[in-house]
Amino acid sequence: MRAVALFPDGPELRVIEKPKPTPEKGEALIRTVAVGIDGSDRRIAAGEIGGDVPDGEDHLVIGHEAVGIVEESNGTDLTNGDVVAPLVRRPVDDESRFAANGELDMAPPGSVHECGITGAHGYMAEFFAARPEYLVPVPESRAAYGFLVEPASLVEKALDQAAAARSGFEWRPSSAFVLGNGNLGLLALTRLETGDEFERTYCLGRRDRPDPTIDVIEDVGGTYVDSRVLSLDEFPAVHEPVDFAFETTGHPAHAVEAVDALAPNGVVTLQGIPGSSSTVEIDGGAFHTELVVTNKAVLGVVNSRRSHFRAAAEWLGETPESVLDALVTGVYEPDEIDAALADSAETIKTVVSFDR
Amino acid sequence: MRAVALFPDGPELRVIEKPKPTPEKGEALIRTVAVGIDGSDRRIAAGEIGGDVPDGEDHLVIGHEAVGIVEESNGTDLTNGDVVAPLVRRPVDDESRFAANGELDMAPPGSVHECGITGAHGYMAEFFAARPEYLVPVPESRAAYGFLVEPASLVEKALDQAAAARSGFEWRPSSAFVLGNGNLGLLALTRLETGDEFERTYCLGRRDRPDPTIDVIEDVGGTYVDSRVLSLDEFPAVHEPVDFAFETTGHPAHAVEAVDALAPNGVVTLQGIPGSSSTVEIDGGAFHTELVVTNKAVLGVVNSRRSHFRAAAEWLGETPESVLDALVTGVYEPDEIDAALADSAETIKTVVSFDR
Repeated sequence: MRAVALFPDGPELRVIEKPKPTPEKGEALIRTVAVGIDGSDRRIAAGEIGGDVPDGEDHLVIGHEAVGIVEESNGTDLTNGDVVAPLVRRPVDDESRFAANGELDMAPPGSVHECGITGAHGYMAEFFAARPEYLVPVPESRAAYGFLVEPASLVEKALDQAAAARSGFEWRPSSAFVLGNGNLGLLALTRLETGDEFERTYCLGRRDRPDPTIDVIEDVGGTYVDSRVLSLDEFPAVHEPVDFAFETTGHPAHAVEAVDALAPNGVVTLQGIPGSSSTVEIDGGAFHTELVVTNKAVLGVVNSRRSHFRAAAEWLGETPESVLDALVTGVYEPDEIDAALADSAETIKTVVSFDR
Repeated sequence: MRAVALFPDGPELRVIEKPKPTPEKGEALIRTVAVGIDGSDRRIAAGEIGGDVPDGEDHLVIGHEAVGIVEESNGTDLTNGDVVAPLVRRPVDDESRFAANGELDMAPPGSVHECGITGAHGYMAEFFAARPEYLVPVPESRAAYGFLVEPASLVEKALDQAAAARSGFEWRPSSAFVLGNGNLGLLALTRLETGDEFERTYCLGRRDRPDPTIDVIEDVGGTYVDSRVLSLDEFPAVHEPVDFAFETTGHPAHAVEAVDALAPNGVVTLQGIPGSSSTVEIDGGAFHTELVVTNKAVLGVVNSRRSHFRAAAEWLGETPESVLDALVTGVYEPDEIDAALADSAETIKTVVSFDR
């Protein structure tokens, strides 16, 4: 079968032929439909993050945002033809308590492999094998967009953890702010606008009109905020202090600055990863004081678990295809991987399709 | 009756004579037993924070950590002789939803008065009046230490909000770290050591032995950590990464640096207030990345509510008097207020006593 693999020397991406996987007992064989691409894939391809090959291999099959169809249920409780999206993390140690309770998203770094990212093969191949606990059903009507379940599950985790973090009192959020208009930011804005948690949403970018990301923001009903003309501490006076902020850029000052945009009792979740050291000057006194006197919270949030995938799949089923389609700006064949990974001002979400 | 009052011009503290309050319908009259002093009182006396006088007055009766005895129940459901500790916040607007649901600790700044701190008279007077919803029963056996209920309630709020913030997964904390060996820090360490949430505790200070604060830390079973010889990022390697950190110093870099001392999935609560702007250089990339990849949380926490006072009063009842007594280094008469407010290396908690 064909697969898109990273060879860490170089690093270099190649389309290779490799044997179709033979599912082990308890695993199903999945025929891949499509695999989405995100910023992590670009950094993996560039050798900046992840890229550890599985033991005994010389390459890593990339791709962690997948949708596929059960080809051989192989004695599992799945049915051939089921549309499924796979989870990303697998335990290094099967005795992991995080594996046992289905919370591998909370497992510490080093105790998990991440399929397609580091230590375990991903899904950018014609087939993959997985146990049912790592597969979540996707509504058949949205099979073509099922690769959005993984990134949408990250938004569900952020909402879940933010609500938990504010469960110690009666939190009444009405406004949300997404920092970043990349593919995750726009997907998050779409989720927040179409969900029922918030009445008003905002999305931060650095673009001039006309721009396809601003179109997406406004088409779903959000308000575009140009960070070149409005800083985060000025945002509340011009718009409103927000109850929830979802940070996707990994801009290293945002963990601190986003707090300025929050209403009292607000929460910011951080999902973007700067990935390197960078010294920034902050007003530590104001940051610390503001957090305390208004009971604000800052949460780091990584990965997601089965319940978040399920919530994302449910959201997918409820969201019009036209809304989902606006996020997808390119569908490529596996041997067009370089074009699929290329990024431009016109790119939102690109996809590698295995659908024949 | 005698009262200790701040006159903002100056500012100046004076012991004054003022009329014994006449309780309104629904209020009880409380005879004050003792009023604890903390860092906020010192800053109020110095004119640095708070100090707004009630409407139509020229002075503010100080004191917000009080214990008293019901002198006239005045038709409330209290009984004369009940030992009670009063809450600190009162709504500016009686229609406040935060007042209605008993969560004034989550009310935004400006929507509350804080008795003895700003906008409403405090408790450093022979008598005060309060409605029963602002009074919490204190075990009679601990009446002499009931002024510790308010500061202990701040620790209960931090524990409560931290547990809520970590309720989105199975959190299994075993270690806790208190930043600061002032009166709140030592009370927090005592609470954390005597409670059943944590097996191991640490407390940060900047003192040489022999030192009374180090004695308290070690007598209750905690480990003293000298921040002059061990930075927060070095702490985990020498001791262990901690699940919970409780910041009391208001040191403006601690909101960022404390994250380095946390274990994956850990949480730091901030309660100290720097109170002024101060530029600090941080490694924003490392801070942001560390929060994300290990699911850490930073929570600002201010004030406390009735349930936290109740938990604190319960803890007081379960804690040996000798342990509580170790925290109290001076008991003063009202006219010794200057001595009561003085701070030295020997001072932990001082108290103004009205017990005759």
